[in-house]
Amino acid sequence: MASKKMIEIFKERKTIEQVEEGNELAPKFDENGLLPVVTTDAKTGQVLMLGYQNEEALRLTIEKGEAYYWSRSRECLWHKGATSGLIQKVIDIRIDDDQDAIWLNVELQGLEASCHVGFKSCFYRSIPTGNIKEEIKLIYKEEEKTFDPQDVYGDAPNPTKL
Amino acid sequence: MASKKMIEIFKERKTIEQVEEGNELAPKFDENGLLPVVTTDAKTGQVLMLGYQNEEALRLTIEKGEAYYWSRSRECLWHKGATSGLIQKVIDIRIDDDQDAIWLNVELQGLEASCHVGFKSCFYRSIPTGNIKEEIKLIYKEEEKTFDPQDVYGDAPNPTKL
Repeated sequence: MASKKMIEIFKERKTIEQVEEGNELAPKFDENGLLPVVTTDAKTGQVLMLGYQNEEALRLTIEKGEAYYWSRSRECLWHKGATSGLIQKVIDIRIDDDQDAIWLNVELQGLEASCHVGFKSCFYRSIPTGNIKEEIKLIYKEEEKTFDPQDVYGDAPNPTKL
Repeated sequence: MASKKMIEIFKERKTIEQVEEGNELAPKFDENGLLPVVTTDAKTGQVLMLGYQNEEALRLTIEKGEAYYWSRSRECLWHKGATSGLIQKVIDIRIDDDQDAIWLNVELQGLEASCHVGFKSCFYRSIPTGNIKEEIKLIYKEEEKTFDPQDVYGDAPNPTKL
């Protein structure tokens, strides 16, 4: 449902100089019409999640000042927090050099968490570095969940795909 | 050149519980064999870049403690800094809930910059938010380049694609 208005804010990509050194918004959506989006917590600097936006999600994020994504697992526009209350208020939207990635710096509302598993950040486990001599065991970096997913999402299907 | 050893560190994805709540490393590489990777500066918390890793790049990053990526534009393994000296020393590697994205927190070596255009971060421009009544103009957030790309990369082709 790409309205005419929605398309107009994105400029045609003409030259590398325009894309890298200019001030025109000329994003490169991938073959699925998506851009990867990094979301960080403005309070802690922590990376909260990696999501995706299509044209509509990016436009709505710009207009509304709240984070919208495209849910690849549910295949729909996703206003983060519409179900869970875990709204992300946008402090800053950045775009990268070749304009094929977005960085959202956000203020968390409600429970101040972002991850559907119940943790604050989706990146709650660390991979140990060094010579790999035996099996790698992930290390938990958040001691406990911030919320119980059952309370927040009820019986909604888990978005994780195998 | 995926060696037998290289494949063994990644476990088969069997259940959502294993992937989300376990301590096994069972990443989901996409249809091109890649994972998106967010890289942040351990000193400032700034997001530096969004790159991609294949199995070999992730394994090398784990083993060597320096950031390796898969360059989509050059279609080759990319040891960040091998050409430019802009090595990224890994402080922490995180993996997200469904194990399809990586967060590298790094210490910058050399010029303390990361972006091939010459800026510290690839995300040197901001998209203004609010009602869209006229053309969007990106706002520069780094006042000047940290280095001259010509000095660092010489005549190497620009990796940005239109």
